[in-house]
This record gives sequence, C-alpha cells and structure tokens, in this order.
Amino acid sequence: METVLRFSRADLMDFIIRYMTKIGVPEEDARIVGSVLLCADTRGVESHGMQRLGSYYGSRIQKGFMDPLTPFKIITETPTTLLIDGGNGLGQVVSHKAMKMCIAKAKENGMAAATIRNSNHYGIAGYYSMMAMDEGMIGISMTNSQPLVAPTYGKTAIVGTNPIAISAPSDKKYPYLLDMATSAVAYGKIQIYEKKKEKIPIGWGIDEDGNVTNDPAKIKPGGHGALLPLGGMEITAGYKGYGLALMVEVLCSLLSGGSFLTQVGGPGRPTPTGVAHFFLCINIEAFRPLIDFKKSVDAMIELLKTSPLATGRDEILVAGEKEFEYTKFNFEHGVPLIKPIVDDLRAEGDKIGVPFDCKPVIE
Amino acid sequence: METVLRFSRADLMDFIIRYMTKIGVPEEDARIVGSVLLCADTRGVESHGMQRLGSYYGSRIQKGFMDPLTPFKIITETPTTLLIDGGNGLGQVVSHKAMKMCIAKAKENGMAAATIRNSNHYGIAGYYSMMAMDEGMIGISMTNSQPLVAPTYGKTAIVGTNPIAISAPSDKKYPYLLDMATSAVAYGKIQIYEKKKEKIPIGWGIDEDGNVTNDPAKIKPGGHGALLPLGGMEITAGYKGYGLALMVEVLCSLLSGGSFLTQVGGPGRPTPTGVAHFFLCINIEAFRPLIDFKKSVDAMIELLKTSPLATGRDEILVAGEKEFEYTKFNFEHGVPLIKPIVDDLRAEGDKIGVPFDCKPVIE
Repeated sequence: METVLRFSRADLMDFIIRYMTKIGVPEEDARIVGSVLLCADTRGVESHGMQRLGSYYGSRIQKGFMDPLTPFKIITETPTTLLIDGGNGLGQVVSHKAMKMCIAKAKENGMAAATIRNSNHYGIAGYYSMMAMDEGMIGISMTNSQPLVAPTYGKTAIVGTNPIAISAPSDKKYPYLLDMATSAVAYGKIQIYEKKKEKIPIGWGIDEDGNVTNDPAKIKPGGHGALLPLGGMEITAGYKGYGLALMVEVLCSLLSGGSFLTQVGGPGRPTPTGVAHFFLCINIEAFRPLIDFKKSVDAMIELLKTSPLATGRDEILVAGEKEFEYTKFNFEHGVPLIKPIVDDLRAEGDKIGVPFDCKPVIE
Repeated sequence: METVLRFSRADLMDFIIRYMTKIGVPEEDARIVGSVLLCADTRGVESHGMQRLGSYYGSRIQKGFMDPLTPFKIITETPTTLLIDGGNGLGQVVSHKAMKMCIAKAKENGMAAATIRNSNHYGIAGYYSMMAMDEGMIGISMTNSQPLVAPTYGKTAIVGTNPIAISAPSDKKYPYLLDMATSAVAYGKIQIYEKKKEKIPIGWGIDEDGNVTNDPAKIKPGGHGALLPLGGMEITAGYKGYGLALMVEVLCSLLSGGSFLTQVGGPGRPTPTGVAHFFLCINIEAFRPLIDFKKSVDAMIELLKTSPLATGRDEILVAGEKEFEYTKFNFEHGVPLIKPIVDDLRAEGDKIGVPFDCKPVIE
C-alpha cells in the first residue's frame, strides 16, 4: 500500500492558486481549476486530480503549448446553443464558463447545449454535470480524448476513452451521477496490473495483432496494442462501447468542427491537443415540478437498493454512490494524496519557486 | 437455416393496415406502425419487426390491454420541451408524433426534447432518431422496457434492456446510427444458444445466485437468473452498462413521472405496461452549417474505415453500417421474413378475418 497523506482542502486550493497564477493563469481561473482537481481527489478519482497539476497543465503552459489566459471565443450563439473555441486554454475554465451559460439559458428556455473545440483536458466529466444538478437540472458532460482504444475489428488506438457523465438531483441521500469512460477500463488500471506482474481479465485490451490478451505488457496504446471499448471484444458487444465513443465525437468534435480521434493529442504534444467537449442542461421544471422529479429519483434508487443480492455481495450500488461516500469521508478527514503525488507537487512547485508548504492533517 | 421468404414492402404495409384498422387503429396510425415495423425487418432487426404485429400489439389491443386510438395528451409544453402521456396506446404512434413536434421545435429554437409516460413498446429506437437525421439534425431516442437485466451485485431482473439510439447525418455513403440495448445482449440471442444447445460466452448473463454462467438454460429473467448489463460482470465494467440503463430511466420515466424498472410490464401484462420514452433533437444549423458537419462525419468515418485491421478481419464497421447495407439489399430484393413469422402472421390474420395474402417475391 502506498502511503496516503491528507491535507485540508483550503491549503491545497491555496497552493494551486499560487502555482497557477505564477505561470500566468488569472486567479479566478486558477480557482476553477483547483475546484475541478480537488473535486476529483475528494471523489477518489486521483488519476484526474492534483497529480495532473504539474504534469499536464503546468508543464504544457510553461512550455508554451497551452494558453494560460484561456482566450475562448463564442463562435455562434442562440438562446439554447453555444459553439465555442476554447482558445487552446484550460479545459476546466472554458467548460466551467460554458456550463454556467448553459444553465442560464436552460433556466430561460428549458434546455441548452454547448459544444467546444480547441480545448484541453477538462478533468472529471462529472464536475460539470453536477453544476447543472446543483441548479435542479439534468446535466450531461462529455469530452473526447487522446486515442487509446481500438475500434471493434481494429488493432490500433484510434479512439479516445471519451467519457460521458450525466447527473440528476434527488431529495434523499445521494443523487444519481454516472461518470464513465466508454473504454472497458482506464489505461492506468492496466499499468497497475503490469507493475504488480498480474494478469488482466479478458476484455480489457488487445495485443499488436488485435487479439485479446491477459498480458498487461502487451497493451501500450500508441506503441502496440490498445484498450478495448466498453463491452470488450465483438462477442461481448464491444461495438456498443465503440459506438458510444463515436457518439461523444459526434457531439464534441463533429458538432463543434474540432479535432477527432487520432487528431486529438495527449499532454506531450507540442501543438494544441485539440480536445473537444459537449455540455447539455435539461431544466426539469420545464417538464414537471422539481420536487416530484427528485422523489422519483429517490424511489428508483430505493427500489434498486432493496432488490435481491447476488451470493456474497452485501449491497447494490447506484452510479456515483461510492464516490459520494468517499467525498463525505474526505471532507471530514482531509483530501487524500499518495506520497508520490505529494513529492511530485513539491518538485513541480520548486521548479517555479512556489513551495508546496501544505502540512498533512494530523489524524 | 430457417427458410426466408421475401415480400414487397407495399404488400406487407397493406396487410399491416388492414390488420390494424380491423382492430380499431386509425389508418394514419396503422401506417406509422407499419413504417416502424418494416423499418426493423428491412434493417435486419427481425426481433422488433412484423413478428410483433400480432404477438404484441394485436394481441394486447384485442384483449383490451392497450388503447387502439392512442389517446395521448400533452401534459406540459414549452418552446423546447414536451411531457406527454401516451394514453396506453401504440408506442410508435405517440413517438412518431412527439418526434415530429420535437423536430419542429428544434427548427425554431435550436433544440427540443420530449419525455413520454404511459406508452407501450415503440419498436426500434433508431427509427425516431433517424427522423431527426433526415431533417438535418442529431436525433436521440431512448425507451425503458420490461426488466430483464440484473444490476451489478444483484441477482434478479430489475432493469430493462433500455436501448439508446443516436444518429447524425453524413454526406457520403452512410450516416452514423448507433442503436443499442444497454444490456450485453438481447434475451433472444440467449434463447437461440439454448435451442442450439450451445454454451454462451461469459459476460452475457447470470444464474439464480448471481454468478456468471455459460449455460443459457440458467438465464430465465422473471423466473431465475438475468441478463447482464453491457460490460458484463463488475470486473469488466458491467456497472457502466447498468449506469447507462439508469440514464435511460432518468430521461424516460423519472422526467415524465412514469413507470420505471420493475414497474414496467411486458406484452403479457393485463394492465398498462407503462413503457416510457425520451426524444431529443439537436438542430445542427444552430451550431454550424449542416454541410460542414456532414463533411466532418464523413471524415471521421473515413479515418475509421482506413485504420489498421486486427488479424483475420477485413473491415472496420461504423455504427449502423451493417444495417444500412441490409436495408439497401432488402429494398432491392424484398423484405425478408422467416417462415415461422409468416405462419404466425397468417394465423393472427385469420383470427380476425384479415387474410395474409402477400405473395413472396420470386427471385
């Protein structure tokens, strides 16, 4: 087990703001980035949290590959629609502002959508759908991403892990929040198995010939092999996950006129990554009273939670539930970061003269 | 191999109209039902085609379980939204009319959505998304359905196969059309393996204890065992398919105030099935010129079609492509129906004095 250190959210936010403003990001924008990153770490999604501060955003900005001012431009706008050029800035900043505009439009006009091209990694998809949820709306958030997944019958990484998030408010314990990549698993999960020298389950990835493999070392998207889409191989309906990944492209990159599939770059690319996003807000009150809708969500969750359990299981979970539990715990006990990430943040901070001086919370 | 007979589309439509009007369905509505059913058979989705004419719709109407007049009511309406009560009528009829209204609203206002409660099985989801596509829009169509799928960690069928369809117009050969159940496979596929006494792949279904099984006889949703959601068991991310099925419930049944999960009934239920639908139209022209969007769709498809193939494969397919190929072939050669379905249509017609007098096309 890695050593986990816990920090106060306020201390980490303070560091993020000092770090980001030092490299030219406006303070208001730095606070948005911090909010999205800390949301990920608090929800237990460390792959999308503070570990990306230096390695993705900080590094790209310092190299001049990304614009710290996020000079986004609204290209077309109607009372329900937005097409935005993200100005090769921070994905979180343009996404946060686009979702705010969508929420305002949906309040006025029942629903609204934004499609955004020429952006960068925006963090966890669910952050933005939750913004709508907090305003009593159904929120949808999608983004394309660098190619890691093979299409069904293909053998190379052509398709992104293209996540989809959707959330709906409830009245009782937790709302519904689905936040999922359209690949079977994240690449990070395969790397963990490789480190542990364990076999991976059938259905996660393919080797350089396009054959399914249980050897994690054979899956190096960009080099050889690839992740499989949700569903795995064709026989277990992997073409559905592949089809969903294309839905994400349709709404993010094709609707915005942005980069798609192999045109999208990862953090190392010296030119714009061309990541594209899509947001949709549905104002529940335009259909039925919000309180009635929330009660329906609760009733659905109740039905699921009380249905018969498989042998050896003690609870049926609803999308988002585990992450809301983590959030609750981490709000009380501090935001968890594993030691290698803390070391990395310290090194990244030292590089630009912004010391990582957050003290772990004593428990 | 079952004997396949081919018929002219016009002859089959004529039979459907005679059959449906005889049991009290208005001619205009019967034509809509025919259009949806024949679309399924023409696309090679025989499970959702004419085989349901008598066994689902005809049988329920004759028993008084469904209203042949489809007396749907608009409950709330705004320039972008519709909440409709389907009046326990024909799902195809209310869905067709709702999608027409959404298209008109989206032309005016950029986008529009309809949620429908108290309906019945509406046929193939993709029919309605294609209606939007034919008007230069992105169309989305979803429906809940009778429970056949177990939630992750559950062991009984609580969740429907809840399909999702989305389509986008293109300029060249075929458009993009994803039309997929959120279960790993359809129940019919498991029944075919059982008939052939073959084992099923791991990931399709579970037995009565909730353990994954390769024995199709152990999967009898409603009795014992259940289908698995897209992704299969937890280790291969079945919780994502399960989460997507709940997304369908959120938009179809929770937003409309309709029935959800185990509240939804199958064709045998003597009370309303309570099936619920959701439709969304996104007017592409509100974002960017339609012709540019279509070219982007073509470019994405081109990139996929020309990417490296897995060993032993000769083509990468795009969602909908295979079905568009079938459609092209079947338009030239006649709508295919297997002999047991023809026999069944003949028997159903005879019951009410509407002879099935379509002659197979001579090839």
